[in-house]
Amino acid sequence: MAITTFPAQDYTTPSPNSMAVLSLPFSVSPYFPSKFRLTTAWFSLSSHLTPFSPSSPTPPAHKIHCLATPLKPTCPPKPRVKVKASEAELKENWLASLSCPLPRDFGTSHSEAKEEEEEGSESDPRNVGSDWVIGIDPDLSGALAVLKSDDPECPAQVFDSPHLSVMVGGKVRRRLDAKSIIELLRGFNAPVGTTAYIEQSIPFPKDGKQGWWSGGFGYGLWIGILVALGFSVVPVPSFSWKKKFEIAGSSFSKDDSRRLASTMFPSLSSLLQRKKDHGRAEALLIAAYGRGLKIESDSSLTLNELVS
Amino acid sequence: MAITTFPAQDYTTPSPNSMAVLSLPFSVSPYFPSKFRLTTAWFSLSSHLTPFSPSSPTPPAHKIHCLATPLKPTCPPKPRVKVKASEAELKENWLASLSCPLPRDFGTSHSEAKEEEEEGSESDPRNVGSDWVIGIDPDLSGALAVLKSDDPECPAQVFDSPHLSVMVGGKVRRRLDAKSIIELLRGFNAPVGTTAYIEQSIPFPKDGKQGWWSGGFGYGLWIGILVALGFSVVPVPSFSWKKKFEIAGSSFSKDDSRRLASTMFPSLSSLLQRKKDHGRAEALLIAAYGRGLKIESDSSLTLNELVS
Repeated sequence: MAITTFPAQDYTTPSPNSMAVLSLPFSVSPYFPSKFRLTTAWFSLSSHLTPFSPSSPTPPAHKIHCLATPLKPTCPPKPRVKVKASEAELKENWLASLSCPLPRDFGTSHSEAKEEEEEGSESDPRNVGSDWVIGIDPDLSGALAVLKSDDPECPAQVFDSPHLSVMVGGKVRRRLDAKSIIELLRGFNAPVGTTAYIEQSIPFPKDGKQGWWSGGFGYGLWIGILVALGFSVVPVPSFSWKKKFEIAGSSFSKDDSRRLASTMFPSLSSLLQRKKDHGRAEALLIAAYGRGLKIESDSSLTLNELVS
Repeated sequence: MAITTFPAQDYTTPSPNSMAVLSLPFSVSPYFPSKFRLTTAWFSLSSHLTPFSPSSPTPPAHKIHCLATPLKPTCPPKPRVKVKASEAELKENWLASLSCPLPRDFGTSHSEAKEEEEEGSESDPRNVGSDWVIGIDPDLSGALAVLKSDDPECPAQVFDSPHLSVMVGGKVRRRLDAKSIIELLRGFNAPVGTTAYIEQSIPFPKDGKQGWWSGGFGYGLWIGILVALGFSVVPVPSFSWKKKFEIAGSSFSKDDSRRLASTMFPSLSSLLQRKKDHGRAEALLIAAYGRGLKIESDSSLTLNELVS
């Protein structure tokens, strides 16, 4: 691959062919969140600065008023974070950032609930209501569980998290598979307003840095996918759901999660028998925890307890 | 909030009211990736095991054949990873996992390119072609850049990454704002097939564990959002784009990124003057690097160099 060098002086001396243009202020939608620093530029296409494309069209050599395309936000703007916001406000803002309903002209992945969406319930997706609850253990060996109280024939499902092998620094490592996770979630046709409860990522202090990186990556990947697909995400500290089910504390192990999940979901017990099935068990228990709290979601105290 | 306790024996003794049902095998679509361990359960609704919802409907007390709803995958199934796949195969699989085109019945966030999508180009989004390139520095202080060679009036834009404050372990920390990132990306109406080049997350060994977690979280969040919104994601090691622009090595600093970006995007130079503007500069340079490679994308070598 040919590499074209850049003369050193180019770093400080703009090309005489480069055309600076009006870049600020821009005409942007009043709804566009003010936090976005919106900037546009005339992309220099002078030959020595853009060696990538000999076929690039030559721009007109005159000044152009560059108005940024008004960006239409698909969600109402979020209230600004105060400089000294209270802890409750920080939690509320964090929770709000984890929910972004699909725009109306975007179609819907939740096809079966399209009519419900059209009735106008975008303002607060947690108020839309859904008989479904999703629970996620975001670890690499985690799982996703779905509870559907409106489906007496299939009230619960659990799926191992899809992953694949990647080469990192000369070593083969497993990593969550974004595409397969998206396929899985789209395949549900979950009702609009479905909340996904995800275990908050709190790495073990004794874990190595790779473990910390991997924990952050999995947590971020799940949250990014879920929010982009229109789910409302609620992080749950592991202590919270374990306390609710009375398996919190050093005297309890992942085996207790499997035993409890087997009791609550007896037809899945055969799939929860191996030690490595704890991710399935915990996803089911997180969903069960979320289901209970969802029913009580009128209480802001309950929501506050969840957010982390 | 009332907490209902579970008698200890419930962990090992299934409730007599719990109804085990046929759970496997399931009727699933032949296209459903085999890696998903699909399981369904009869969710026990016996009173002492489901204290969350007194209003839950009582299930019929008989055995039900529970057939999982066939899940329709929205993307063609990915080839399986061999046990001893070559490094090239691992790279190819990783790249494939970072692209999942929007399904046809899903609508499109890329509204202006809807006709192009309908012409049937779902098989490989990198073959669809787009005159746009997105570049992302995924750090918390990073940015997103857009280059549009088909828009002579606004060929380049750059946006600081939106973030918000959250409380973590008693400390206020900044964290990327998923909702605002999604709003930003949806607002572009980018053509179908647009590729987003993102700097590969390689934490500095001297960084603390929080830094490693945060690096993984940001990288995962951006990838999750981008793939879910239909973009094709290509990770780029920082060394690759810096080498191309001859600013790789310890003798170069982030200041050189800003100088180079200011030269290539002169109308943005005023926005690249502060030290903390390096995220903007690097997002622009990553996009510029991706633009060059995209034009040469017939070369598998070029793609292989990109994937990490």
